[in-house]
Amino acid sequence: MLGATGTVGQRFISLLADHPWFELAALTASDAKAGKRYGDVVRWHLPGGLPDRVADMNLEATRPEVDAEICFSALPNEAAEEHEAALAKAGHHVFSNVRTHRMDPDVPLMIAEVNPGHADALERQRRDRKWTGSIVTNGNCSAIHLTLALAPLHQAWGIERAVVTTLQALSGAGYPGVASLDAVDNVVPYIDGEEEKIEQETRKFLGLWDGQAFVPAPIPISVTATRVSVRDGHTESVSLSLRGGPHPDDVKACLRAFRGPPQELKLPSAPERPIVVLEQPDRPQPVLDRDLEKGMASVVGRVREDPVLGVKFVVLGHNTIRGAAGASILNAELLAAEDRI
Amino acid sequence: MLGATGTVGQRFISLLADHPWFELAALTASDAKAGKRYGDVVRWHLPGGLPDRVADMNLEATRPEVDAEICFSALPNEAAEEHEAALAKAGHHVFSNVRTHRMDPDVPLMIAEVNPGHADALERQRRDRKWTGSIVTNGNCSAIHLTLALAPLHQAWGIERAVVTTLQALSGAGYPGVASLDAVDNVVPYIDGEEEKIEQETRKFLGLWDGQAFVPAPIPISVTATRVSVRDGHTESVSLSLRGGPHPDDVKACLRAFRGPPQELKLPSAPERPIVVLEQPDRPQPVLDRDLEKGMASVVGRVREDPVLGVKFVVLGHNTIRGAAGASILNAELLAAEDRI
Amino acid sequence: MLGATGTVGQRFISLLADHPWFELAALTASDAKAGKRYGDVVRWHLPGGLPDRVADMNLEATRPEVDAEICFSALPNEAAEEHEAALAKAGHHVFSNVRTHRMDPDVPLMIAEVNPGHADALERQRRDRKWTGSIVTNGNCSAIHLTLALAPLHQAWGIERAVVTTLQALSGAGYPGVASLDAVDNVVPYIDGEEEKIEQETRKFLGLWDGQAFVPAPIPISVTATRVSVRDGHTESVSLSLRGGPHPDDVKACLRAFRGPPQELKLPSAPERPIVVLEQPDRPQPVLDRDLEKGMASVVGRVREDPVLGVKFVVLGHNTIRGAAGASILNAELLAAEDRI
Amino acid sequence: MLGATGTVGQRFISLLADHPWFELAALTASDAKAGKRYGDVVRWHLPGGLPDRVADMNLEATRPEVDAEICFSALPNEAAEEHEAALAKAGHHVFSNVRTHRMDPDVPLMIAEVNPGHADALERQRRDRKWTGSIVTNGNCSAIHLTLALAPLHQAWGIERAVVTTLQALSGAGYPGVASLDAVDNVVPYIDGEEEKIEQETRKFLGLWDGQAFVPAPIPISVTATRVSVRDGHTESVSLSLRGGPHPDDVKACLRAFRGPPQELKLPSAPERPIVVLEQPDRPQPVLDRDLEKGMASVVGRVREDPVLGVKFVVLGHNTIRGAAGASILNAELLAAEDRI
Repeated sequence: MLGATGTVGQRFISLLADHPWFELAALTASDAKAGKRYGDVVRWHLPGGLPDRVADMNLEATRPEVDAEICFSALPNEAAEEHEAALAKAGHHVFSNVRTHRMDPDVPLMIAEVNPGHADALERQRRDRKWTGSIVTNGNCSAIHLTLALAPLHQAWGIERAVVTTLQALSGAGYPGVASLDAVDNVVPYIDGEEEKIEQETRKFLGLWDGQAFVPAPIPISVTATRVSVRDGHTESVSLSLRGGPHPDDVKACLRAFRGPPQELKLPSAPERPIVVLEQPDRPQPVLDRDLEKGMASVVGRVREDPVLGVKFVVLGHNTIRGAAGASILNAELLAAEDRI
Repeated sequence: MLGATGTVGQRFISLLADHPWFELAALTASDAKAGKRYGDVVRWHLPGGLPDRVADMNLEATRPEVDAEICFSALPNEAAEEHEAALAKAGHHVFSNVRTHRMDPDVPLMIAEVNPGHADALERQRRDRKWTGSIVTNGNCSAIHLTLALAPLHQAWGIERAVVTTLQALSGAGYPGVASLDAVDNVVPYIDGEEEKIEQETRKFLGLWDGQAFVPAPIPISVTATRVSVRDGHTESVSLSLRGGPHPDDVKACLRAFRGPPQELKLPSAPERPIVVLEQPDRPQPVLDRDLEKGMASVVGRVREDPVLGVKFVVLGHNTIRGAAGASILNAELLAAEDRI
Repeated sequence: MLGATGTVGQRFISLLADHPWFELAALTASDAKAGKRYGDVVRWHLPGGLPDRVADMNLEATRPEVDAEICFSALPNEAAEEHEAALAKAGHHVFSNVRTHRMDPDVPLMIAEVNPGHADALERQRRDRKWTGSIVTNGNCSAIHLTLALAPLHQAWGIERAVVTTLQALSGAGYPGVASLDAVDNVVPYIDGEEEKIEQETRKFLGLWDGQAFVPAPIPISVTATRVSVRDGHTESVSLSLRGGPHPDDVKACLRAFRGPPQELKLPSAPERPIVVLEQPDRPQPVLDRDLEKGMASVVGRVREDPVLGVKFVVLGHNTIRGAAGASILNAELLAAEDRI
Repeated sequence: MLGATGTVGQRFISLLADHPWFELAALTASDAKAGKRYGDVVRWHLPGGLPDRVADMNLEATRPEVDAEICFSALPNEAAEEHEAALAKAGHHVFSNVRTHRMDPDVPLMIAEVNPGHADALERQRRDRKWTGSIVTNGNCSAIHLTLALAPLHQAWGIERAVVTTLQALSGAGYPGVASLDAVDNVVPYIDGEEEKIEQETRKFLGLWDGQAFVPAPIPISVTATRVSVRDGHTESVSLSLRGGPHPDDVKACLRAFRGPPQELKLPSAPERPIVVLEQPDRPQPVLDRDLEKGMASVVGRVREDPVLGVKFVVLGHNTIRGAAGASILNAELLAAEDRI
């Protein structure tokens, strides 16, 4: 676990603490913290407390020699730039949560159910970069949930365009992150760099690996990203045009039926339903629905006609589980199950 | 003041307490409260306290005989149905905040800067209904701010279509209104009946009175209405297509230049700038901007290109001032200044 | 389960759904809801969703004939007055969460670790009231956590007096309960009837059953109860005088060592540690600590000298688990294990 | 204005912008910001916007040569240590909001209504330190409101001891200050150094200047300080023993009757009532009462018997107005009116 002390690092640790396949072998942090006991350094934010065994582990510096086949990275951006490639070169399989390599032309940006075929790019990645290891990234938290909801519709009908407004949770900005004076009794209608990331990454997710390069899906997407006073769980209001203009009931059926390799392979972190569709008019809501399927599902509600674009709905997803750490772990499980790493 | 004890009623009273033209002559409430001292009955919610003079007024029942030329109505829906028409018939000029008569074919739904000409319908209203008084309505709180921001653009270029997501404040639901367990750490992506109201009323606002009937503007509008943990101030994320596809800078200039009769006549409640345009990337925000121009402006920010529809921005407005009581008072000031009532 | 649709009822159901000893045999509600499917009537508020099996159960009216040996009651006050005694008379063992019978001279007000001996009063209760069943109550949510923290200290040294300020969670008022406009950006420094309940119930909990009557502990307690913007978890600031003026370290050791019959008998709902003592200076906090020991512990922190009364600390506890439904279930487990019901 | 860009600095500026006696002559900030336009540097947090005239002022470095007779200081601690004494030596009258000099043996810690006589210490301060200027401090935000409520009671009866729990607002920690993840759905029962400050400062406020030294009031005070999810307005739950055990009605009358030199002299920032006493059972509340008397009053409610200490009540006050900037300005007005500076 690279960058183990931050909020995403903590979420990784809570998900990996009792993982049936992976064992937490090493925790890394900045050089200043290396050598210290994890429990003494971390300001643990997750309910339920830090597992004792992990608390007693000693932090080490992030180095290419780290003794772990798979490296989950929650490094800050600059550290990611410094270390992720070096680790991959040294033979590690790096599953990164940061944006550093997401848009690289030979790095898969992957959601296990959506575009597992993008892992084919690893071949070129290793050959061109002369790495024995690899880097696989997962996307921005809002892009992941948007894409999960769009992917089955894009497969079934083709998406022509989409207009999205996000209402994003505070934990998405890490800790200390958003100041409380910006959060209580307020909305901040802006998150630096977020809209571009969601638009670009969604197109890469929904695009193709043609053997040589990624071909993004040519879908115009307009995103407005806002921050609301919610601890966890990003809500997104989505309007879109689908080819053929299917009925909302067909859209719901399509979303409900969606399954991918993680479900077929019954991977340990795979949700039974990657997309949960709710019928109640006032759902999904963060407090009620962000933990469905242990936070690994995208929860869709209010599927209905859109008088401008055709169809609209609201999608909610847990931003630090399926939107970050959980997505990375599922990617690693899939590539491990397929003997690609 | 009809329906003086609720949250909108209280806002009316705070705005009318020192009004230079209008004097609070009577406060009405349900029969059960009639005869009681206002200060003993009201659960006053506004900061700064209840003016002493008003606290000492006695409530009366809502009756056609109420002694006041102009009646501001914050009656609940059923009471509005029972009383507003009867009052108008008895010669009162009713300025209503409830939806009962908003879509009536002879009742103006008015924003003083946007469609003052709709007041011409009062002639038909009085003739057909044989009233000596009248009913003028103002719109839904989100519809008012959306319309204020759209009106100058519709005049300048013509709006082809719009996709809107609202993030609405808690006070919009009155008191007790939204349960705290639905508000803290949460978003509710649904407000009953709200989306239809915003879509329809915006079209009526932007439409014409052709001498016989209202002709709504034929603009497809798609609204998703959500409730967020904000006390006052509705935020709206707006994407729209304008004929000719003007540059965002032209859109901003157009919004900034907008003025209407209230500004020309320097009406007491008229904001100097009905639309305030902000340049900072993270504005408007409810806590910082809802009180600009004493809550009588729509505050627009983040005007920028929209890759799907053409242009997008965020608009914020105080929902109980310009979105309710303040809008009604401004309408009354305009019609009084023009000797139409 | 009596009164199954409210917030406490829902918490009961979530705790009983997979209970190893008890099986949910019947759900009751008001006559108006009787006959309907639970899942169609309940507005389920707890994260993670309603168990399918329970959703499919049909509600029945609350009647003495209900087919269940043990009845957990989350009835509203008036319904509790009407039904609890009738059920006990008909042979049911009623574990009540409402205040109706809490201060009755022959009804145990019980915390399983603190005053299990109060169950001896059931003998007199059945004899005097000619019941074949019984009523056992648990206390007010704040009183339970205050008492859990005070009980070991009272046993070890004797409490002379205590001054308490509570910062109580929103869920304590049920649903819809506290209005969001009273909760967001606010504190309400008053909860109707709460201070008296906490003072009286704590004295009864810490008192004795002398074979004939309950003798409350003669401890002056001063409580100020406030409502803060927290979903779950009551925080209490406690200052107290202990005989002999023990050092804070001894107080902490005493709290940590506390165990009762539920721990000895390893009852299914018993927390390993009924009192968790934290050393970090800024703990306990609701979001971080309310779920420790699955919500069944009182979490104490900041144990230190009090320059006025001797010692002070902060105690936090989950108000709807150990402070309500969980406490009742633990009482039932204890009496069942001891063959008293 | 020294330290003009922070949250307290901003509050000073909003209160001084239209001050009838004082004119904003200079704004200072760290050297890095010196020379820049204030409006370009400040991240203005107060509703209603930054006055244009102030926005156009240029920041200067904090230097002894600053051209202003009276210096209001909202400097951070280290900067205060570096600059405040140097400014006083150079002839400026420094009114400081930081804790640096508060407990100095020759520096008045002053609330204009409570202990104006402490200004006599300035004579010794100037003589001993060979200053032509002076330093006067105001206290911690919670200490000020606690003291305002205690002072008349201490004068009338004498306070024997007090137990206090504070529920403090987020703005007390400045900006960015408290992280939103610590604030939303949470209470933090700890504020570093706060409890000691409130205890000590309150004793100094209520003590005497005997001509040579400050003699603190020998009152044991126990404070527990917590942070709650409120933007502005500290709430304090206060239990205390008064000599003679007066009736709560007498306590209320005493609080209501309290006036000081600011009221007699009708100083521009003086509230008509320095202490407002409310009778409603559920008041004071931050959203409703923090702005009473323009934020310059301490608002007391729930005055009632305390079964342990004698009497208890809840006091609320605006922490950045009367609890900080407003208190400093009132001190300056008083000393200016009395020709002491």
